Amino acid sequence: MPKAVAGPEIERLIQLLARMPGLGPRSARRAALQLIKKRETMLAPLAEAMRVACERIMVCSTCGNVDTTEPCTICRDPTRDPSTLVVVEDVSDLWALERSGAVTARYHVLGGVLSALDGVRPEDLNLDSLVSRAADPAMREIILALNATVDGQTTAHYVTESLKGHGLKVTRLAHGVPVGGELDYLDEGTLTAAIRSRTPF
Amino acid sequence: MPKAVAGPEIERLIQLLARMPGLGPRSARRAALQLIKKRETMLAPLAEAMRVACERIMVCSTCGNVDTTEPCTICRDPTRDPSTLVVVEDVSDLWALERSGAVTARYHVLGGVLSALDGVRPEDLNLDSLVSRAADPAMREIILALNATVDGQTTAHYVTESLKGHGLKVTRLAHGVPVGGELDYLDEGTLTAAIRSRTPF
Ligand SMILES: [Zn+2]
Ligand SMILES: [Zn+2]
Repeated sequence: MPKAVAGPEIERLIQLLARMPGLGPRSARRAALQLIKKRETMLAPLAEAMRVACERIMVCSTCGNVDTTEPCTICRDPTRDPSTLVVVEDVSDLWALERSGAVTARYHVLGGVLSALDGVRPEDLNLDSLVSRAADPAMREIILALNATVDGQTTAHYVTESLKGHGLKVTRLAHGVPVGGELDYLDEGTLTAAIRSRTPF
Repeated sequence: MPKAVAGPEIERLIQLLARMPGLGPRSARRAALQLIKKRETMLAPLAEAMRVACERIMVCSTCGNVDTTEPCTICRDPTRDPSTLVVVEDVSDLWALERSGAVTARYHVLGGVLSALDGVRPEDLNLDSLVSRAADPAMREIILALNATVDGQTTAHYVTESLKGHGLKVTRLAHGVPVGGELDYLDEGTLTAAIRSRTPF
C-alpha cells in the first residue's frame, strides 16, 4: 500500500478504479485525476451511469445475458430462430457475435470454461440450464462458439457429451484465416485448418 | 459507432468508460461487464465513490492541487516550509513527489507545459498566480520539478524568466541514473549528465 497523498475520497476512488480490468494502480491515478478535472463532462455522467446500471441491470435467468429486463431482450425477441442455441463462454462473446450480425438464434452463456488450473468444474458453469433448454422439442442445433483454446475445446467436448441423446446437431465455429489476416502472422494449426477447409473460389 | 448490442444503460456505461484514459472501446466493454457482474463489490462502491468525489473534490485556488478542502491540505499545513515552492506540470507529479516524501515545501501546479505543437501558451498555464506567490517576502527558492522533455525544459526557461527580479534561487531536479536503473538502458544524455554530476562515493 503506497503512501496516501490525496484525501480519503480521492484515494478511495483510485483504489476502486485500480481493481478494474485494464487499469493498474498507476493508470488508476491518472484516470481518477482526469475524471476529477472533467467533473461535469466525465465524472458526473459516469457516476450517474454506474448508479443507473447498478439499479437496473440484471442477469437473464434463461440465458445468462445481462440486460435491464428479465428475460433479456434477446430471449424475448419472437423473431429469433427457436431451433438453435449459440453457446458462449461469456457475455462479451455474445456481444461480439451480436455485433457481427451473423446470429439469428438465441444464446446460452456458460459463465466460464472448464479449467483444471483455475479449478473451474462442470457444476460451476450454467450447464444444467443448457441441458434443459436443449430438451425443448423445437431445438435442432447447438452451435458451440467457444474460444479455440485448450480449455475452450475441453469444455466443447464436455458440453457435447452432456447433450448426447437429445438427437441434436452439435456444431462449432469454423477454423481459418481471419478476414484481413496476414498469413505469416498465423500459427501452423490455423493454416493447416484453413487449407483443409478450403472452399471453391 | 459500432452496432449497439446491449441495452441503452449498458451502452451508455461502455461509452463513458471508453473515454477514460487507459481504456479503449474494447477494454471499456470488458470493464463494464466486469463491473456489472460484480455489482455489489465493484459497481455499487465505484458509483458511490464517484458521486462523493463529484460532490466534494475541488481544485485549490492557491496551488492547483485537487482536494476536498479549499485551500488544499498541503497549502493549509503549517509545518510546510514557507520559503520554497515546487513547480510541477500536473497534480500527478505532485502526487509522485509526495509519495517520495522528499518535499517538505508546498507546490504550484502549472496545469500543463508550453507547447507550440499543442498550442499551449503562457496564458494557458497558472503562471500569474505563481509570480504572485513568488513575490511573498518569505520566499527564497523555486524548485522546477518539470519533466525532462523539450516542452518541460522550454517551460522551465520561461518560468525562470518570469521570476527574474524577485531575488529568488531557481533550481531544477538533478539529472542522473535512476535508482535501480541499468546503464545500458539509459540514453547518452542521461549518462553524460550522470558523469558530469558525479558525487564522492
Ligand atoms: Zn436471455
Ligand atoms: Zn493548495
